[in-house]
Amino acid sequence: MNFPEVIERKRDGGATRPEEMEALIRGLLDGSIPEYQVSAWLMAVVFRGMDFAETATLTRLMMESGDVLDFSDLGEPMVDKHSTGGVGDKISIPLAPAVAAAGARIPMISGRGLGHTGGTLDKLESIPGLRTDLDADAFRRTLEELGFAIIGAGPSLAPADGRLYALRDVTGTVPSVPLITASILSKKYAAGVDGLVLDVKCGSGAFMRTREDAAELARVLVGVSARMGKSARALVTSMDEPIGAAVGNALEVRESIDVLRGEGPADVTELVLSLGAEMLRLAGLESDVTGARDRIRERIDSGAALELFGRWIEAQGGDPRVLDEPDRLPAAPVVRTVAAPRGGWLAAVETRDVGFAANALGAGRTRVGDSVDPAVGFVFRARLGTRLAAGDPLADVHAADPAAAEHAEKRLLACLELADEEPKPQPTVLETVDAPQGGG
Amino acid sequence: MNFPEVIERKRDGGATRPEEMEALIRGLLDGSIPEYQVSAWLMAVVFRGMDFAETATLTRLMMESGDVLDFSDLGEPMVDKHSTGGVGDKISIPLAPAVAAAGARIPMISGRGLGHTGGTLDKLESIPGLRTDLDADAFRRTLEELGFAIIGAGPSLAPADGRLYALRDVTGTVPSVPLITASILSKKYAAGVDGLVLDVKCGSGAFMRTREDAAELARVLVGVSARMGKSARALVTSMDEPIGAAVGNALEVRESIDVLRGEGPADVTELVLSLGAEMLRLAGLESDVTGARDRIRERIDSGAALELFGRWIEAQGGDPRVLDEPDRLPAAPVVRTVAAPRGGWLAAVETRDVGFAANALGAGRTRVGDSVDPAVGFVFRARLGTRLAAGDPLADVHAADPAAAEHAEKRLLACLELADEEPKPQPTVLETVDAPQGGG
Repeated sequence: MNFPEVIERKRDGGATRPEEMEALIRGLLDGSIPEYQVSAWLMAVVFRGMDFAETATLTRLMMESGDVLDFSDLGEPMVDKHSTGGVGDKISIPLAPAVAAAGARIPMISGRGLGHTGGTLDKLESIPGLRTDLDADAFRRTLEELGFAIIGAGPSLAPADGRLYALRDVTGTVPSVPLITASILSKKYAAGVDGLVLDVKCGSGAFMRTREDAAELARVLVGVSARMGKSARALVTSMDEPIGAAVGNALEVRESIDVLRGEGPADVTELVLSLGAEMLRLAGLESDVTGARDRIRERIDSGAALELFGRWIEAQGGDPRVLDEPDRLPAAPVVRTVAAPRGGWLAAVETRDVGFAANALGAGRTRVGDSVDPAVGFVFRARLGTRLAAGDPLADVHAADPAAAEHAEKRLLACLELADEEPKPQPTVLETVDAPQGGG
Repeated sequence: MNFPEVIERKRDGGATRPEEMEALIRGLLDGSIPEYQVSAWLMAVVFRGMDFAETATLTRLMMESGDVLDFSDLGEPMVDKHSTGGVGDKISIPLAPAVAAAGARIPMISGRGLGHTGGTLDKLESIPGLRTDLDADAFRRTLEELGFAIIGAGPSLAPADGRLYALRDVTGTVPSVPLITASILSKKYAAGVDGLVLDVKCGSGAFMRTREDAAELARVLVGVSARMGKSARALVTSMDEPIGAAVGNALEVRESIDVLRGEGPADVTELVLSLGAEMLRLAGLESDVTGARDRIRERIDSGAALELFGRWIEAQGGDPRVLDEPDRLPAAPVVRTVAAPRGGWLAAVETRDVGFAANALGAGRTRVGDSVDPAVGFVFRARLGTRLAAGDPLADVHAADPAAAEHAEKRLLACLELADEEPKPQPTVLETVDAPQGGG
């Protein structure tokens, strides 16, 4: 293999062939292709892109670089959801028990927070005792018994993705739709998932700022999945303010419990119903969206979803009493209410900066390996479109000490725009992207 | 320095700042910036380019990464010529003594052949005894005494260029006008040159195939030189057939001697006069082109240029008797004449392939460090536009053995197109590129 020729062909707009892609992944892992050649190829991909066939090949090779879990003996399709991430995105937490209570099987692989976004694992670990580092046997047993289980990816799943991402992170080659696609899908499909619902976010708190960019990523995620013989569907959803009212680990678990009690914020509930309905459809349990939504809502209203969540917490080592006694969750010593400095409508939120402000409070991490404070964060008391008088509460800051609270208040106020005119309301789900006819 | 940010800015079309470029070059040499980051930056430059200021900064840093020769105490401007390379390009050999005989001072740094192009050092070393590895003192002494001296770049001049080129060569990042510019100019200006004439070739034997691409490179070479406070001028010249009749080391030295006797091929003589005239103008010895051309032609006609060439050969250890007894040059044991397979005009030459065919005979090298056979090559007996009858001689193949000669004949015939119509004649010099007004 003459790898410079492979780089040159990609640079000039041609395709990288399957056997070349294989040499690339093997070479990255065993050192037989130097990293300076891989990074030059990555940068050429940033500029030239890859087609569905190339991206599917790369995804499959990354998936097969480690263990590939197989739950086919359980006799039911496995489904999962992936979100491109955002601020206050706790959806997986109420979604998994609600959808599992409705009959689907979900071997969920989740991540940790980094930069402005939180991570499901960090949030769940604010539940006293809860562990997300189950071994493969415990993962399978929990999945089989309860219908879902949630763990971190660990080094055995798609190790090539970890290596490639580490290189992309330091070579300016992160923003590439096919590379993002291969990274997301390789981990999910290594976990033995047959059907995947993708929540592709756009707006002020998302990696994709515009709806067009998000829709493009959604099309590629769904098209490449189809190429790999997987069923996938994507929802493009708005992230122009945090999802729900709570931002911060334990605060988001509290809000998730509220959702499972039928008392959660409207946007969180809507995402659980919309994403969950697609999961039930991909699992073959419901054919139409309305029926699927009704089935999930019924599981919430009946208390079955909350009850299953409690059993799952216990199964993964956590204290299920948090469901009835949420004060068992970590709580911050200082709570400070941020008041509206003037009257007006809450018209815009710099959501990404809200994420960084929560980070500064200790809710997230700047570097891999930093520890997080489970108690701190924000709870918004106004949403986009809320009309406020001067002095009305905007949000509560939950902080470790008064100085941090004061600093966070300043940062938060800088993220919020109060205007004299009412902003145009926007739906949460903007569009649905289905597999192309003919398999892409 | 956060180097990923530097890569990202270049990727997004921004400029790399001087202090970042400095960190890049220092980091490449001392290992403090990993090669995978340098290569990602290089690929971003391939796509996004660099402006004159960035390219001048990079050139200066590469130049200053090693020794910078200084001949200012000699009290005269130093001039040199650089060609972007081609097949049969022996111009430096007659040019240096002709222009030095006309009064200019030329500290010439030359290279070796690689790929389809030959190298001046390889050609000169076919002269028995001649050495091109003079130390700095001998180089200066020869320059001072004779007006010119010719050596290889060696590891002490612009070592960053060697490191960067080695990385570009294996990462698909060679074809970039600003990177090519920095590579060329850093070595030349490290040799203490004040004024540089650039021969930028285009056509079937050149790196730049089209006149537009060559003119663009010429503009950048001249513009960046101006930014660096150097006087430069570029000629865009055609390379749609080999330069002169001879291709091969000793064969090209013979032809160079013919040129200095006033008996050389018209195109070689024209290039010596055109390029030499610009060198005299940059040296401040002549103001107009006609006067400068006349002065060089007079030095050739008087025998002064040939006489100086002989003294120079002797000064650098060679046998000056080759001038009068060219049979002292290495000669190939087999000479085979290639005949025209049909009648017609010689209408096109795949010049790059002629270079590779000479290479296959042993005249050039495929890898750095290969040895070359000084005797072998081609001597064309027809040029573009020559009308031939079937059986008329096209060229002589000079080979080490009959099998090599036969193989070379086949390859040569595949490079030559005989047509029923006379091709449109093309001038050798296509255009002149001067420094932009205001210094670029």
